[in-house]
Formats: sequence, structure tokens, C-alpha cells
Amino acid sequence: MAVYTEVSDEHLEAFLTEYDIGEMLSLKGIAEGVENSNFLLHTTSGSYILTLYEKRVDPRDLPYFIGLMEHLSEQGFDCPLPIHGKDGKSLRQLCGRPAAIISFLEGMSPRRIQPFHCRSLGAALARMHLASGSFDMSRPNTLSISSWRPLFDLSKDRAHEVLPGLAEELDGELTILEARWPENLPTGVIHADLFTDNVFFLGQDLSGVIDFYFACNDAFAYDLAICLNAWCFEPDTSFNITKAQMMLKSYRELRPCTEAEVEALPILARGSAMRFLLTRLYDWLNHPEGAFVKPKDPIEYWKKLQFHQRVNGPSAYGIDL
Amino acid sequence: MAVYTEVSDEHLEAFLTEYDIGEMLSLKGIAEGVENSNFLLHTTSGSYILTLYEKRVDPRDLPYFIGLMEHLSEQGFDCPLPIHGKDGKSLRQLCGRPAAIISFLEGMSPRRIQPFHCRSLGAALARMHLASGSFDMSRPNTLSISSWRPLFDLSKDRAHEVLPGLAEELDGELTILEARWPENLPTGVIHADLFTDNVFFLGQDLSGVIDFYFACNDAFAYDLAICLNAWCFEPDTSFNITKAQMMLKSYRELRPCTEAEVEALPILARGSAMRFLLTRLYDWLNHPEGAFVKPKDPIEYWKKLQFHQRVNGPSAYGIDL
Repeated sequence: MAVYTEVSDEHLEAFLTEYDIGEMLSLKGIAEGVENSNFLLHTTSGSYILTLYEKRVDPRDLPYFIGLMEHLSEQGFDCPLPIHGKDGKSLRQLCGRPAAIISFLEGMSPRRIQPFHCRSLGAALARMHLASGSFDMSRPNTLSISSWRPLFDLSKDRAHEVLPGLAEELDGELTILEARWPENLPTGVIHADLFTDNVFFLGQDLSGVIDFYFACNDAFAYDLAICLNAWCFEPDTSFNITKAQMMLKSYRELRPCTEAEVEALPILARGSAMRFLLTRLYDWLNHPEGAFVKPKDPIEYWKKLQFHQRVNGPSAYGIDL
Repeated sequence: MAVYTEVSDEHLEAFLTEYDIGEMLSLKGIAEGVENSNFLLHTTSGSYILTLYEKRVDPRDLPYFIGLMEHLSEQGFDCPLPIHGKDGKSLRQLCGRPAAIISFLEGMSPRRIQPFHCRSLGAALARMHLASGSFDMSRPNTLSISSWRPLFDLSKDRAHEVLPGLAEELDGELTILEARWPENLPTGVIHADLFTDNVFFLGQDLSGVIDFYFACNDAFAYDLAICLNAWCFEPDTSFNITKAQMMLKSYRELRPCTEAEVEALPILARGSAMRFLLTRLYDWLNHPEGAFVKPKDPIEYWKKLQFHQRVNGPSAYGIDL
């Protein structure tokens, strides 16, 4: 929720000469995305998003992210389309940062999630997984299970500030996850950050998916587990099985899951809860005093993790094999 | 540069039923305006700004600000036009705040000011002063000379943290300003905050003026003095007399100044520098540690004030009586 780099009228004007998208009309820094500087750009040909990639994004990953959006768009999946410059390139430099212009997707992120949102989400996720099958680049999941213990080690001495005993609980949970983490599930390109603010609706219809800057190659079912956590809990962290059922059903109608994937859901959901808990815990303990960007509450994901620990099997999510 | 209040899709949808501006398409919080929450709204009929007025704006002043924009627009002055709801009202409540939808002005604020910008600015300021002549509401300038000593008193004990001896210098300057402040200059509605980020250009043409939330009734020439400070100094705080000359000339071509106004310019420029110095000094000394919104440097305005102290008369700004 920030603009880290300012772009002057003169810099923008020079930048736009590299493109065939008309004359600049306006540029507004938008409070979206915590990793990059994002601007809503109006030109005489329409609306676009201008993104400047800041420090937290590895520039070596950008061709993967940009290429993925382009590939998915070509496959008819509703996501931002990177705009090519006159030289054919969609990635260049602006104000010392890697920068890209992508098409603007109309739509609003839903605030109060209803079951129909989850039904649309499941179908969109399946379409994304299927559409990315023909994408020929790959990127490891840098926030997968092998990263969790090193991340935990950075926070464990102060975890008690968030909740007494949390370090011991997480240590034990990590040991279980490391022992039981499923191998050999079907893999492909996953979004890996499909929270509600990355999905747009127009009325009842899902209009698109944004923010592919955590996308990577990993188990498809891990993406489902992330969505279970992000979409199927109520604000009081009670689990809404109807939402889970609708999401999983609509997903499986388009991309049938293997038996192993269904059976792995509970442990994947625990792992996904652990991943977001650990990054939130780190940010919570390390944000500057009085900073404007308020870190997200790690406790929310601790409660979700506890729910999944108590689950007997995938039927807890409203599905069977 | 912030969004203080979040607006959900459901709240926005309900809010838009009060208007005849089509269906909502998207809403992006924009990093503009430090006082209010601003959003760029796309509907099926076009682009708008949605503003939620936050704590620092007195709701009793809103009818003046909204009425002024409407009046100026009606007079053909390029500024945002408040949109009336179906009930005829342009001010209502959203998420517990007073809120208004105004038309979206295309254009970019210039970063590197050139003389032609100042020429256009002078003419626009004159047009605004003339167009507001028939506006029948009034609002005192709450940041005029009578407020400066109380504001100084809030910072004087810590002013040395910014610059040793600053408190003594400002104390002496305030005494001079209080003794010499001109009375009986022609008054009317002034913008009172016409910094470069509140003026938009499309190419070489001034496309509009925004942010009327400091507008008030005061001496017209005081608005000119604010613009001298905001537009006619180079980034190294050297004074560019060519810019001042062009600004004042184009202003006077449309609204000829009285002799008293011209003679008062040096003291008004000192006063205007003092006003922004004092608010910046206060914000500098009182911003939360590590806050995202970095306060503006008060020293810049101390240097500008010193320039005006050394001025012999209005000829220093490139004009004569």
C-alpha cells in the first residue's frame, strides 16, 4: 500500500514514446501492492497499470512473471496483459527500476466473501492451472517448506511477544510438516498468493486475477490449500465448509484431482497456514515503529493452522475421494 | 499520500445507487492528498474521484469547498465538478465520513517547473480570482497571520533541533510581519495552497486546478505570494526572476493589480513563507518515528523567507508599479 518511487511527467512522457498506446493523460500512484510501486495510467487509448519493481522483487524473476501473464492472457484467462513496446519488449527501465505497463482490469475485490465467490474462484483457479500447462518457463517456490525453518529461526526468540508458547508450538508443527509433507503430487504453475484482494468481480462475475509476483512451480493442490485458508474462513476464523465445498467442487469439475491430492489437502492446508503465519510473524516483529503499512496479524493464521491440525481428513473440507 | 478509510465493494455499490453515473467498474485508493482518502473510481460512464473527508477537515467547511468547485466549474474554470446525486446533493456519508464524488481531471503535475508553466499559472490564478467574484459564500483564512504566533509557540522550544537560532529568528520576523501586515488589499476567494502538485498540465497546456480544501477569503495578492514561493524558486532555492515576471505579467493582464497590491508583494511573500515554514516545522517536530508520510523540509521555506527579507521592493520579482 505504497508508492516507493515517484515518476515525473517528463520521465513518463519519454517512457511512453517506447510504446504505441497513445498520449499520456494522467498517472496516479495507487495504494495497492506492498512490494512494488503501482500507478493507474490513463492515455488517449485507455487505462493501464504501470508497475515499477522495487527491491523485494528479484529482477531475474520478472521474465517469468511477465511471461506467465502473457501466456495466461493468450490462453483466454482473465489477467493483466503486459503491453509490448515498439521494440517488442514488455520489460524496461524507468527511474532506475525495472518497469512494465500492463492492461488495466476492471473489477472490485470482494470484501465480504459469499459462497458464490468461492464457486467462481475454484473454477478460475482450475482454468489458471490448466492454461499454464503449456507455459514453458519455471520458477521454484522460494517460500515452500524448505524455507520455513530458516524463516522460523529468525522469529522464534521473540515469538512469545505475539503469543506465549508460540515458538514451541510452531517448532513441533514444523517437525510434523517436515515428516509428512507430500511428494509427487501433480505440479505446475501456481499463483501462490490468491488472496481476496487479488481477485476482481464485476457484480456476481469474476472479472480477473491479478498479482502474479509469487507465482511459481509447485503442487497444484497447494494453491487450493492457500485458497482454503484465504477464502473459506469467516472473519471470526470459524471455518465455512459450504464455501470450501463450493470452491473445491467447481475446481474439480474443470481439473479433476487425483486421490493423492485430495488426501493431501489437510497437510497442505497446515503448511499453507504455516507459510503465511511465518511471514506475518516476521513482518509483525520487524516492522518499523509507527510505520504506515500496518503488518497483518499472525494470530489469524495460527488459528487457521489449529483448525487444520484438528481435521480428520479431506471430508472436513466438504469433499470425499 | 494515503488512504485512511477503506471502502468495500458493497458499500460502494450502495453509495452509487444514489447517483446517475452508471455501474461501478473499479475503485483504486490513490496516493494523493495528505488530508483525505481519495479514490479513482471507474464507472460505465467514465472516471471520477471519490473523496472521503477525514478528521483534519472540518465538516462545516465542506459546503464552502464543494460550492466553490461547483461555482468555478459553472464559470468555465477547469477544476473538478462535484457530482450531484439523484436527490440533488453532492455531499453525503460513506463509511462514517462525509464523502463526495467529483469529476476526474486528466493531466499531470509538472515536476521540473519551466517559465511557460508559470505563465499559464498566472493566467489561471487570475481567472480563478475573477470567476469566484460571484461566489456568495465566505470562509476566513484559518492559517492567516493571526494564527502564526500560536502555531510558532507550539514549536519554538524545539525549533533549534531543525536549525540553531531558528526560534529567535522567527520570533523577530513575526514581530515585523505583525507590524507591517497590509490591510485593505482587494480580497476575494483565494486557493491558498496552489503548489505544483495541485495544477495539471497536458503537454504545454494547463488542464486544471485541484484541491480547494484550503480555499478561503483573503487578499488576492496573498495567493500570488504563495505562488511566488511555490513556483518561482529553483530546487536549490535560488530565485528565478524570469518565472516570477511571467507569472505576474500573465496574472495582471487578466486582473490588473492595484498599486497597494504590488507594493505589498514582498511582505506578503515573507508572510506566505512564514505560514508554510510554521506548518512544516510543526509537522517535522511532531511526526511519528518511522512514519511513511515523510514531512516536508521546513528549511526550504526558511531559505525562501530569507530571500524575501533581503528584497528592496516588488522590482525584485520582475515587476514595477
